[in-house]
Amino acid sequence: MKLVVVGAEGRMGRMLIRAVAEAEGCTLHGAIERPGSPALGQDAGRLAGIGDLGVPVSDDPLSRFVAADGVLDFTAPAATVAFAELAAQARIVHIVGTTGLSADDLKRLEAASYHARIVRSGNMSLGVNLLAGLVRKVAATLGEEFDIEVLEMHHRMKVDAPSGTALLLGEAAAEGRRVALAETRVSTRDGHTGARRPGDIGFATLRGGSVVGDHSVIFAGPSERITLSHHAEDRAIFARGAVRAAQWAFDKPPGLYGMDDVLGLRD
Amino acid sequence: MKLVVVGAEGRMGRMLIRAVAEAEGCTLHGAIERPGSPALGQDAGRLAGIGDLGVPVSDDPLSRFVAADGVLDFTAPAATVAFAELAAQARIVHIVGTTGLSADDLKRLEAASYHARIVRSGNMSLGVNLLAGLVRKVAATLGEEFDIEVLEMHHRMKVDAPSGTALLLGEAAAEGRRVALAETRVSTRDGHTGARRPGDIGFATLRGGSVVGDHSVIFAGPSERITLSHHAEDRAIFARGAVRAAQWAFDKPPGLYGMDDVLGLRD
Amino acid sequence: MKLVVVGAEGRMGRMLIRAVAEAEGCTLHGAIERPGSPALGQDAGRLAGIGDLGVPVSDDPLSRFVAADGVLDFTAPAATVAFAELAAQARIVHIVGTTGLSADDLKRLEAASYHARIVRSGNMSLGVNLLAGLVRKVAATLGEEFDIEVLEMHHRMKVDAPSGTALLLGEAAAEGRRVALAETRVSTRDGHTGARRPGDIGFATLRGGSVVGDHSVIFAGPSERITLSHHAEDRAIFARGAVRAAQWAFDKPPGLYGMDDVLGLRD
Amino acid sequence: MKLVVVGAEGRMGRMLIRAVAEAEGCTLHGAIERPGSPALGQDAGRLAGIGDLGVPVSDDPLSRFVAADGVLDFTAPAATVAFAELAAQARIVHIVGTTGLSADDLKRLEAASYHARIVRSGNMSLGVNLLAGLVRKVAATLGEEFDIEVLEMHHRMKVDAPSGTALLLGEAAAEGRRVALAETRVSTRDGHTGARRPGDIGFATLRGGSVVGDHSVIFAGPSERITLSHHAEDRAIFARGAVRAAQWAFDKPPGLYGMDDVLGLRD
Repeated sequence: MKLVVVGAEGRMGRMLIRAVAEAEGCTLHGAIERPGSPALGQDAGRLAGIGDLGVPVSDDPLSRFVAADGVLDFTAPAATVAFAELAAQARIVHIVGTTGLSADDLKRLEAASYHARIVRSGNMSLGVNLLAGLVRKVAATLGEEFDIEVLEMHHRMKVDAPSGTALLLGEAAAEGRRVALAETRVSTRDGHTGARRPGDIGFATLRGGSVVGDHSVIFAGPSERITLSHHAEDRAIFARGAVRAAQWAFDKPPGLYGMDDVLGLRD
Repeated sequence: MKLVVVGAEGRMGRMLIRAVAEAEGCTLHGAIERPGSPALGQDAGRLAGIGDLGVPVSDDPLSRFVAADGVLDFTAPAATVAFAELAAQARIVHIVGTTGLSADDLKRLEAASYHARIVRSGNMSLGVNLLAGLVRKVAATLGEEFDIEVLEMHHRMKVDAPSGTALLLGEAAAEGRRVALAETRVSTRDGHTGARRPGDIGFATLRGGSVVGDHSVIFAGPSERITLSHHAEDRAIFARGAVRAAQWAFDKPPGLYGMDDVLGLRD
Repeated sequence: MKLVVVGAEGRMGRMLIRAVAEAEGCTLHGAIERPGSPALGQDAGRLAGIGDLGVPVSDDPLSRFVAADGVLDFTAPAATVAFAELAAQARIVHIVGTTGLSADDLKRLEAASYHARIVRSGNMSLGVNLLAGLVRKVAATLGEEFDIEVLEMHHRMKVDAPSGTALLLGEAAAEGRRVALAETRVSTRDGHTGARRPGDIGFATLRGGSVVGDHSVIFAGPSERITLSHHAEDRAIFARGAVRAAQWAFDKPPGLYGMDDVLGLRD
Repeated sequence: MKLVVVGAEGRMGRMLIRAVAEAEGCTLHGAIERPGSPALGQDAGRLAGIGDLGVPVSDDPLSRFVAADGVLDFTAPAATVAFAELAAQARIVHIVGTTGLSADDLKRLEAASYHARIVRSGNMSLGVNLLAGLVRKVAATLGEEFDIEVLEMHHRMKVDAPSGTALLLGEAAAEGRRVALAETRVSTRDGHTGARRPGDIGFATLRGGSVVGDHSVIFAGPSERITLSHHAEDRAIFARGAVRAAQWAFDKPPGLYGMDDVLGLRD
């Protein structure tokens, strides 16, 4: 499978280049950066610290998309929407790990998915997506005598809270309980809070060091607690998940898919 | 529902007396101890530290079983087999939390279950039984690139290892993977062990203090880990689970049931 | 040692009555409730669920204090200040587990401590006080490349956040680093927070179920993390700590002490 | 500071080369492999995946040691003993991360330390050494009513159990209690174990996935638990610790030192 990496120079881009180079049956067909990037013309493999791959970084996505099978994209919302249109034109797979997409951006991805096979997820790891399924199930099984709390920890440089993955897990809990997260979400507690409101879904956020990403969902009931946790050691799991999604989507009909589909986790 | 507690004087027996007294719609109909026990004739409620219940401890189970609806039994294998026969005679519900039953004991329980409704489990808590279902599912989903480890901690007085609940969770993992636990179980590691054998299910045991019971099942894969944990704060959850099982079994046909049935956790 | 329990009817009061009754060398000399309490006249032991102790609940503290050796007090700020004056008059030991005392309340306790031996702590457990000492030491040893986070979980009925114990641990970290907690404390994170500010001490709060009290202090540095945790199984540890503090203070000169002194944890 | 890396081709050797290249004030002066290694003659930087450093891998340690300031050594006991003699001849710093040294090997290191400054540790990370100091202190403070357990988890390829670091932590606990670890150590629990023996120090071992190294020491007492944990994200912390040790030892007199000395953790 011939894959193109967009945003090649960034930390996640270089991770994706390495993941493509290592994946059996995959070759790097292109590496894209924005016009003016100092990386243009450099070899993508060398950029990623794995030796020459014979693929120079380019600022012309369409020329690379047309002969490729898929594109891996962890960039930013505006760029992702533009790439979605090019990927639809080229009729290739588009893997979207970009976060912070607006409702309008999502509508444009949906439009593109009439022609492209798009897989989008806020977290491409096998473990987190599996965990979300478990959280949905447990939340559906246990009544409100079990309180639900979502805890996450990330490195000191992370600029938003709670993490997209914590929200994804909170959404899974809310779905399981058939409530709206927006109405049950409690993201801060400080000072005189009063007793916990039955049915609330609480979030707590830790920041520090170089933590890649830890998430726990706690179901705290009368005299017992169930905790479901995920610990990521290395951002490489997200890149490997993206490659796996591309391989899965290769022979699927056009549409907008999630990692649940890729991993066969839909009940 | 009129319930009898056998082994009334023990720590778990007194816990069961309190759980029956607190449960809505339940009354304590009898409290049994072995002949010669110093508790005979004492009031069962006073024995359990909750004030008089008007039920003296007796050493004659059958006289109590005949007018009761069910019996709660966390005693020892030989006693449990005998009680099963009396419960079958009396056509009442028999809740069995006894551990260490042999294959032969189980056969006799099965025979009794033609006439009695028996619910048997190594752990009566909602949380542990729910966890076992999750473990089975995750083990079935993830391949051998995820290693399975079961960790437990109990108080310093516990005399066996791993705990019955750890084994129950290991069994769930083995079922999910369609392997035999006996062939994949590793319960000790000390000295030069060599690398981990693919497919093994490892157990690790901690003992100390007054820990009621903590269990974790870890799925450790390439650069990520999923951990499913249960924490028990209080033995009362096992007593409350037993009462709940009795209430559930009240209108069921004779048979041998598990907590999966009681909690509606069968997929 | 003859001890009086004030606030005898509350959950903590009954716990204290049991702890006094169980402690070697201690007897319950009085049990105080406010005028009008329905518990007045009842036997304190019966109130605490441990059988008659021959000590009726009274609303006259001074008459009890005069012939006692100490008073155990987990009530509310206004009551505690009043009891401190009576304890000073009676020249007895005053153990204060009351939380939420204002700067003015503390000044009055200090005044009382010219005549009474007062031991005050936001948490009377051996473990938490030991932990606070470790946190102080580690914070003093590690530089700002290690980020400090304090995490706590308590039951769903708790009305304030972070817990007094979490603040006590945060204070220990701030002392170790020679900074003011008020200037470095971050108690909420929600939405676009920006990167973590070097030197901040973060707090995260979980609420749910019947959790007695879990606390962790995390030191997250470049590629490694140290976590120091305390887990309380039972509120009885606070009551036992109070009795231990009273026994320690028995032969000490008047003054205002902390659990560090009682436990011999001062370096 | 001019540093030589021995065992340059191994995973830890390449990690050390990168750590030297990144450390301020340090340069790679030599990279040694055994005669016959395919790495001989290759550039050490390229071997470590960080581009040419102008240092070819050599099989002649002494020629490199004579003009160097120190050598970093995570090899095997026999090699380490030989390097210690050469380092003593060259009067340079010798950092020893090698594990599994016999009593006899240690004697030879001690002999070499009359001329060389040797720093030896089973774990070069700041966090683990700090933790060991805390464990010693807590074990000395708490009596036998607190049970001590050491838990560790490492990746599936690790061939021995418990880890050297777990044993280092167990030793710290035993020192704190003034007992011999050999007499109190319990490394396996399986089947009918009987109740925990007071004073024992228990070890439990988990293996799986790609876990770099997690260690916890648990002090489990009556109704409360203190847990002190270390989590390593990346083996690079051991390499950085070795460089830091070399920098510390640069101006010290000959002798045999530990990481306690380097980190200033001796009380």
